[in-house]
This record gives sequence, structure tokens and C-alpha cells, in this order.
Amino acid sequence: MAIITLTTDFGTRDAYVACLKGVILRIAPAARIVDVSHDIQRHNVLHGAFVLRQLVDWYPAETVHVAVVDPGVGTDRRIVVARAAGQFVVAPDNGLLSLLQLDKVIDEVHVLENPAMALPKISHTFHGRDLMAPAAAHLAAGARLGDVGPATDHIEVLRLARAERLAEGAVAGRIVHHDAFGNLITNIALDDLAPLIRVHPDAHVHLESRDLGPIRRTYADVAPGQPLALIGSSRQLEIAVNAGSALEILDPAVDAEVVVR
Amino acid sequence: MAIITLTTDFGTRDAYVACLKGVILRIAPAARIVDVSHDIQRHNVLHGAFVLRQLVDWYPAETVHVAVVDPGVGTDRRIVVARAAGQFVVAPDNGLLSLLQLDKVIDEVHVLENPAMALPKISHTFHGRDLMAPAAAHLAAGARLGDVGPATDHIEVLRLARAERLAEGAVAGRIVHHDAFGNLITNIALDDLAPLIRVHPDAHVHLESRDLGPIRRTYADVAPGQPLALIGSSRQLEIAVNAGSALEILDPAVDAEVVVR
Amino acid sequence: MAIITLTTDFGTRDAYVACLKGVILRIAPAARIVDVSHDIQRHNVLHGAFVLRQLVDWYPAETVHVAVVDPGVGTDRRIVVARAAGQFVVAPDNGLLSLLQLDKVIDEVHVLENPAMALPKISHTFHGRDLMAPAAAHLAAGARLGDVGPATDHIEVLRLARAERLAEGAVAGRIVHHDAFGNLITNIALDDLAPLIRVHPDAHVHLESRDLGPIRRTYADVAPGQPLALIGSSRQLEIAVNAGSALEILDPAVDAEVVVR
Repeated sequence: MAIITLTTDFGTRDAYVACLKGVILRIAPAARIVDVSHDIQRHNVLHGAFVLRQLVDWYPAETVHVAVVDPGVGTDRRIVVARAAGQFVVAPDNGLLSLLQLDKVIDEVHVLENPAMALPKISHTFHGRDLMAPAAAHLAAGARLGDVGPATDHIEVLRLARAERLAEGAVAGRIVHHDAFGNLITNIALDDLAPLIRVHPDAHVHLESRDLGPIRRTYADVAPGQPLALIGSSRQLEIAVNAGSALEILDPAVDAEVVVR
Repeated sequence: MAIITLTTDFGTRDAYVACLKGVILRIAPAARIVDVSHDIQRHNVLHGAFVLRQLVDWYPAETVHVAVVDPGVGTDRRIVVARAAGQFVVAPDNGLLSLLQLDKVIDEVHVLENPAMALPKISHTFHGRDLMAPAAAHLAAGARLGDVGPATDHIEVLRLARAERLAEGAVAGRIVHHDAFGNLITNIALDDLAPLIRVHPDAHVHLESRDLGPIRRTYADVAPGQPLALIGSSRQLEIAVNAGSALEILDPAVDAEVVVR
Repeated sequence: MAIITLTTDFGTRDAYVACLKGVILRIAPAARIVDVSHDIQRHNVLHGAFVLRQLVDWYPAETVHVAVVDPGVGTDRRIVVARAAGQFVVAPDNGLLSLLQLDKVIDEVHVLENPAMALPKISHTFHGRDLMAPAAAHLAAGARLGDVGPATDHIEVLRLARAERLAEGAVAGRIVHHDAFGNLITNIALDDLAPLIRVHPDAHVHLESRDLGPIRRTYADVAPGQPLALIGSSRQLEIAVNAGSALEILDPAVDAEVVVR
């Protein structure tokens, strides 16, 4: 009854997602398939890494997460299987595991090399179907991490801006993601802010030159249409507009700077 | 083997839906999760209520429907669990249950208050994950309605225009929804029309000043590209265009009036 | 534990897909429902046929595929159940089975006529819910092909351009589909090309007047942003742009001609 989740940039107009599911069900008929997202922005590895980071906090042990955002399919980039938080993650080694790695959630990584874990015939353009889905199915059906191939010490990690502490305890970071509600997620984690907030609980959040006031508890702490900053559901500082879209209303530059002081 | 359905306005680009599913599967590993829609229009409680109304007509007894369209998260709006048509509905008390209530499908409503039905740590911004998903999982795993918290006599109901009978047996209503095919759904139910149709089976449907002719049986009763009115699949009067989009071709005003006479 | 897949043009904003799922789960509580796509282009039977063709290559025996792209609902078009590659396909007889038929994958077709396989009450506008979903559920629950109704020798097949061999071994075809990555899929199969490639392994692919060079192995065989031709994952000749969208960059005419020589 193992669970396999799917996170891809395949969209939902084509048969590609369905092919993954069929391959899985032929190998592991009892696997339970969960759609995470097929709307990762095309070839946007960071977007995929961001979604993948959150999954392992919420799924049961032994869940197998498959992530296919794979612009390098057919090149010599490897496919890896990570053990993270008691779960498995199967992905191309192209940075998709970056946030799991930076947050030190990964315990062990093996390289997918065992041909017994793949389809008999492997295309040059669809490794999700021919390599990753079968490996995930074998893991769900009881294969062990060591069965996929040799361990590795190194994986690709995207160079990501991290929040920094400035003089006088201020904390600076950037907007790294916006969600479908138009909320702007920063790279400033609750842990980054804790020392500052302990001393200055009323520190204000600034999006570039704009003062958004202190950190609020929830969206409705300001009037509808007004912007605010709060700690979001994945414990990152987030900029939002009550009953509106911060992305549309504040229209920040890509990578816009956010400072709490 | 209980079924849990999910209806949200979360979209499909983020990890939010996947978090609900993970929370459910940790608590109720045997639950079967069904995606209804994650494309409810952002914060549009009426749209959610409209979809939710239809579900209970088609699902098995004991199904648990979770609906998260929740602009008031973090305010003092309550979360409720309703018993309707032998099934459960878990939703914020913000009007999402309006159409179930107006159609008298709800038997009993309890307020979600029991902390044993929630995650240990509750955020201020994501009650779908922290309160509603766990409660649904506990219900799917065998909890009883009374376990969630005390019964309540009152729930929020949106003020909705209802169809009215005019002089001479005519019936007037409004367009309240359009579906993805561009069909325009009115608030005139088959039951509202029955007395008129019994006497005047050829009564014409008028969308504002436009005469759409008598009520047809199916789309193909008019030529392609031509508008028509018929009783739709949820037994409401519906305005459509054969092989086309009534929304685009007729371009009606929001809330446009429809009269059958 | 039979699998039922769903391929529709219903979109994901309405309750229509959820109604199919509920109907199935009432009749076959143990069925495992797999979403293939609900974003088939509205009323585009060819698009549905294209997706459906691929499914049977990847699913387990006895899987039941339901396809609802049904602009003729309510007319006298029939609903059929095909046996293909050890699986079932339930669809309106409007051309959705065309590619399965042209590729000679279909073994047997029966017409859905047995009222015991349908809901007690059948609407004129939603046969997916009232006829196709219940029939699929009964098949998943153990009904046999002969139970649905009489066999038939004839099904509707769309008139589709096929690739042709030209003088001197050249092969000509057309673009018949583009996927969500902007890859352009042609109607030239690997089998059509085999004789030419055996003699001229370096034959060039021409999209109208544009020379795309020889057939490549994978996207990364050309520089990012450059166009190429390759054999895609379903073994059709495909035109792509490495790390980009061929649809946007090459902007071909609908049905544009492709010649390999």
C-alpha cells in the first residue's frame, strides 16, 4: 500500500502523466498514486525544488516522491534516489533536491543505475516514464535504496540566495516564489527572524522602499485590499494582500529585496 | 476504505493540495482521496457552494467531502462538519454550505472544536491543512459526527436570488454560474418550471430581450452555433449554444435575467 | 481492484468530473480511478483520440479507459465499448477510437445498449455520467464485454492524413498535434521512416521550407534555442526546440507539411 506522489512540469493536456501512472501500476499494482502538481513552471527546477521541499514534511514514512522537471533529459545528467525524512525522492540530479539538501533533510543519495529498475527499452526523451516511474514503483513494491545503484556523496545544488543578518540585528532576504493566490514567499525563515523578533517584536517588514508594518498573525489582521507580512504556512516570511493578490497589487521586481528591521 | 473528496481554490502550481493529501494519509492510511476541483475561483464561496451542492447527489454513503474556499482563515469564522445525504461535509462556516442548506439536504451540523481532531500545531493561515484535512481523515477512519464538537443550529447562508413565479404563471430567475463549456446555468430549477410547463409546454425562454424559443431536449436540437435553453444535467434551466460557448456568443450581463413565459 | 482511467474535455472548474467519479465509486467501490486529462481541447475528438491511443500501450490488462469528448450527446450517435490490447475503452462512437482502429489495436467492439449497465435515469446532456461511467464501473466490477450489448463491425473513424512515401524514398507527412511543451508531433511514425533511414541515415527533416538537419537522438543534441527533429517518446517524428517551444519559435501553419529526404 505504498504511496507514490508525482510532481512534474508536464501540464495536463497530454498523455505524459498518464504514461507514468500506467507504468507504475503495471509494476506495483497496489501502489497508491497521488498527484502533487503537473503545473510546475516548464523547466523551472527551482519551482520544482520548492514544492518538493514541502512534501517530505507531510507524508507518511516510505512514501516515494517522483519529481520530473528534466530539461537535461538525454544528456549525461544522472538520476538519483534520495532518502529524506524516512521517505524516498526520485529525481534527475539537476538541482531539484537543492532545498532538501540545504535544509539538511537528506540522509543518503544513490544513483539510479540498475537496469532491473528500468523499463526494458529506454527512450532518449522520456526518462520520467522509462526510468523514474519504474524505479519508484519498484521502491513502492519493496526494493531497497541500495538496489537502485551505488551511493554518491555529491548532488547538484542550485546557487540560491540565503537570508542574511545585517548590522543591528536586521534580516535581509528576497522574494523567491509566488503562489497561485499571489502571495510572495521570501527566503527568510522563521528561524532567521527569531533573534530579531525576540528583541524587537515590532520590527517592520520592508519590501524595497515600502514599509509593510510589523509581522501579522493572519491575513485578516489588515483591511481587505491592504498589504501585510506574516509567517506563512511553511514558516517562511510571506508578503500578502488581504483578500487580494500581492503579486498584482505590489507588482514587485523579480528577486525584490525584503528587509526586516 | 472511506472516500475523502477535495474541493479547493488552491490551484495546482503549489504544494498546498499535496499537503492536505499527506496529512490525510498519515492519519487515515486507507482513505481514498478524490480530487473534485482545485480551480474554484479564488475566494469565490458561491462557486464552491455550487460545486459542493452537486457532490452529495452522486457519492456513496459515508463519503467525507472537504471544501476549502476560505478567505476568512485566521478570523473567528468557525469550521463546521455537516451530515448531508448520509455523507459528511467539512468546510469553513462562510456560506459554502448555502446551497445544501437551501435545498434542505443537511440533517445536522457540528462545530469543529475537538483538538484531538486537529494537527498538534495549528497555523493561522492554513486551516485546510491543520484542521479540516485531519478532521476529515478522522471521520474517514471511523470518528463520529459528535466527536468533532457540539451541534449548532445556525450556519452562514449566502443571500441568493431565488427564481420567482410571476403573473400568468411565468417564471423569472437569473444566470448564477457558467461552466467551462460556456453554458449558462440559471437559478430556475425544473421544479420551479413544472407548473408552467404542464399548462404551456411550449413556453419560450427569454434571456433579457432575446427569445431563445421553447425548452429543448438536448444541444443538437438546434443547428450548430445557435443558442438554446434546456434542462441541464443538474436539473436547472441552462442556456447553451450547440457546439459553441453561450458565454462568448451571447455575452450576457452578470446576473442577467431569464424569464420563461 | 480494477483501474478506471478518465479522459475528458470537462475542464476542472465544475463538478462534472467529480460526478463521474462518484457514480463509479457507488457501483464499484474498489475501483481505482486514474485522472488522465480533463483538458482535452473542448469538443476536439482528434485530440482525445491522440491521447487515448497512447494509453493502451502502458496500462495493465483489464484496465477500463473512459473517454468523454462528446459534442453529439443526445443525438443518435452510439456509445461503444472496445477491447484493445487486453483493456477496455468506453467512448462515444464519434471518432475517438480512430487512432486505435487505424493502428489495428482494437480486437472487438460492442455497442452499449444494456440498460442494466446504465443509471436508472438518463439525462439528454450528460451521457458520461449516466451511461459511460456506470458501464465502466460494471466492467471494472467484473462484467464482460458481451454484457454491454451486441457486437458491431463498424465504428466511426476520422479521415486522417497519413504519412506517404514520395519518389526517391522521401517521406512526407504533417504536424497533427502539439504538446504542452510546444513540441510538434507529426503523423510520421518511426516505421514509416525505417526504409529511408536504413539507406540514408543522414536524411534531413524539412518543416515547409526550413531545413532542420538530420534526425537527432535527444533535445540537447542542438544548442539551447535551436530547432531539431527527433523520434519522440511515442515513436513519431517530432519537431522541437531545445529548452524552448517549437510552437512559439517556429510558429508553423496548422497542418504544416514535414518532409524527410
